[in-house]
Amino acid sequence: MNVTGSAPEGLTVLAEGTVTTPRGFTAGGVHVGVRSDWDKLDVGLLYSEAPCVAAAVYTSNRLPGASLVISREHLKAGRAQAVVANSGCANAATGRRGLDDAIRMAQLAGARLGIDPHLVVVASTGVIGTYLPMDRIARGIEAVELSSEPGGMDFLRAIMTTDSRPKHVAAAHGGWTIGGVVKGAGMIHPNLATMLCFITTDAPVQREFLQDALRRAVDVSFNMIDIDSDTSPDDIVLVMANGLAGGEPIAAGDARAEAFEGALTYVCTHLAKAVCADAEGGTKVIEAVVQGAATLEDARRAAREVVKSVGVKTAVYGKDPNWGRILSAVGNSGAEVDESRIRLYLRRPGGGEVCVFENGAAAAYDQEAAKACMAPPEVGFRIDLGLGGASATAWGSDLTEEFVRLNSEYTT
Amino acid sequence: MNVTGSAPEGLTVLAEGTVTTPRGFTAGGVHVGVRSDWDKLDVGLLYSEAPCVAAAVYTSNRLPGASLVISREHLKAGRAQAVVANSGCANAATGRRGLDDAIRMAQLAGARLGIDPHLVVVASTGVIGTYLPMDRIARGIEAVELSSEPGGMDFLRAIMTTDSRPKHVAAAHGGWTIGGVVKGAGMIHPNLATMLCFITTDAPVQREFLQDALRRAVDVSFNMIDIDSDTSPDDIVLVMANGLAGGEPIAAGDARAEAFEGALTYVCTHLAKAVCADAEGGTKVIEAVVQGAATLEDARRAAREVVKSVGVKTAVYGKDPNWGRILSAVGNSGAEVDESRIRLYLRRPGGGEVCVFENGAAAAYDQEAAKACMAPPEVGFRIDLGLGGASATAWGSDLTEEFVRLNSEYTT
Repeated sequence: MNVTGSAPEGLTVLAEGTVTTPRGFTAGGVHVGVRSDWDKLDVGLLYSEAPCVAAAVYTSNRLPGASLVISREHLKAGRAQAVVANSGCANAATGRRGLDDAIRMAQLAGARLGIDPHLVVVASTGVIGTYLPMDRIARGIEAVELSSEPGGMDFLRAIMTTDSRPKHVAAAHGGWTIGGVVKGAGMIHPNLATMLCFITTDAPVQREFLQDALRRAVDVSFNMIDIDSDTSPDDIVLVMANGLAGGEPIAAGDARAEAFEGALTYVCTHLAKAVCADAEGGTKVIEAVVQGAATLEDARRAAREVVKSVGVKTAVYGKDPNWGRILSAVGNSGAEVDESRIRLYLRRPGGGEVCVFENGAAAAYDQEAAKACMAPPEVGFRIDLGLGGASATAWGSDLTEEFVRLNSEYTT
Repeated sequence: MNVTGSAPEGLTVLAEGTVTTPRGFTAGGVHVGVRSDWDKLDVGLLYSEAPCVAAAVYTSNRLPGASLVISREHLKAGRAQAVVANSGCANAATGRRGLDDAIRMAQLAGARLGIDPHLVVVASTGVIGTYLPMDRIARGIEAVELSSEPGGMDFLRAIMTTDSRPKHVAAAHGGWTIGGVVKGAGMIHPNLATMLCFITTDAPVQREFLQDALRRAVDVSFNMIDIDSDTSPDDIVLVMANGLAGGEPIAAGDARAEAFEGALTYVCTHLAKAVCADAEGGTKVIEAVVQGAATLEDARRAAREVVKSVGVKTAVYGKDPNWGRILSAVGNSGAEVDESRIRLYLRRPGGGEVCVFENGAAAAYDQEAAKACMAPPEVGFRIDLGLGGASATAWGSDLTEEFVRLNSEYTT
């Protein structure tokens, strides 16, 4: 059922892998005290010994943070060699001074690494509406020790905020390797924002293909998850390819293109699902597979609406096989539907499914079997719209009292 | 600030009024046990002694309940004389049998009242995916006693589900009166769905004008509230005008049209805000006023996104003046924005406002004054986008642990 959950053929998953698993990448993180109440690592550097072809997708929020504005500018040429990042302050809603600070971060990192500051991507996550403590940021950029091990994980720890665990993965395919880290557990924790995802590879990749492949991979992964229906001002997914594995750049139409895009999609999907699994206060991951849709857009809409629905999220939390809410979410999605053709299935923990709705009404099913489907930490629904051949999968977290508690705690 | 909160000039608000306040309307409710675990009133009738011009707006959910499908059919001619309604069973996701049951409800009510069944509007709210107990429904329709007092309130009690209190109002203007009731506290309480709103008037109103005026009134009231971002399969707002106040029908362009539409808008807005105030688990109402938008659609989007944002809802619950989340919601709305022109204000309980954001960055404001703005049961935000002349107001509830508890309770 979960087609994107298993790795494509020929790809070896390295569960302990990270952004420094591919050749030529080093990284590190230090504690500088961006927030006075934190003792965690909060400034990080990721560096490639060779300049990279780079591609990124960004938040759709129309009020992007200053770091994101500068990174977008730097990435226009499709090249990058380093990332400088901090947690504790989002550098968002900070006006001209925020832009100056982001430019300064790139300059400091460029000077430290001996590279053009325009090859530095800047990322910030944390409180919205406060300024970066630039003296501390500068000290941190100077102090970071770069290494492959433990540098990759330290870099990740430096960007984590409300995350309960580090989320990372790598995969090897023939001569090249790809690795990624992601930070994010709620788009909107009190005064904290942002999902940051950094992916590295030593594969040689042509620029346009890298951007197109990333967009497609994000469309079926990060664009198909929902924790709280919010998008932060700083979301970014960046991929850097330094080509140190050797060979001609992989481009569209190339025999190697499919394998590379498959690996990129696998890494994005793995990390996107890891974000859902680490959702603030979350206890379960919801997977919604929509099939038989008239169009791909319909399938995507319906799947996303199911995992986004507050009714579905709370029912999953309560282990309640309340399929009326799933159906209602499908009806709300705007997708073309014909009630008499819809079939709705709950995934059984041991394998197989329970059909709960067909021919326009409740199916004859065993109530206990339906309840059992709601027990495991990953709950699966399959909705066959019976209209066409398009399908899509989306993932979401449940909604719990703990989420509300975390997000309503008085923090100012 | 809250322009729609006060009644238009010349309108006398009758706080105790209801659907039987206008001349010629009677109603009633009985207990029949639609749900075996309920002892509340659960079948109701609303009747006008004279046939009415009628208009309605419906859920946008593409999988409407059977009662709604039949009502929409009956209302095509723009006429109605009665409403038969039940709580405890939504008659949704019930296929052909559900449609037959809804038709039968109209027939039974028509026979009881001695009117054409096509003049009967059918409304059901409750569990999705189960069938109506038609023998009990039939007994209930027979048993309801119609009266002006206490009939109007009994009818309302018969359609209430998770509502914590009855929500009703009436208003008089010169020779005519308008009254309304609404039921709804969450679109998606466990197995319960639906917001039902019924409005009656003895004013004489021309059909097309009534439909147009209702659509405009709903656009600034029910379409501007959010509890949980869900739309049930059975939502309906119905207005019936029996003309017993006498006179020529009020039509567009008529000197009396503005007063009537003002009264209709007032009733819709009053009831819509009452739904927010009675939200499942809710402790506060959020009012978001957006001004200076480039277009009306932009203003509406931005205002709705603010009251819909889970981040804003939880911050309001936590009494946290976390304006970064308001700004982020505006950025997410898709409305045209220019960060440097946005001004964001929190409404002070005693009057006046606190400006927290301007010129692209945090304003210089007193933290204690900002905190105080979050204390009252109705919290107000004003966002001036500084781009144009369009404005809109939206209302929402906060999001609490109690909402999650109510919606995740195991009920099947």
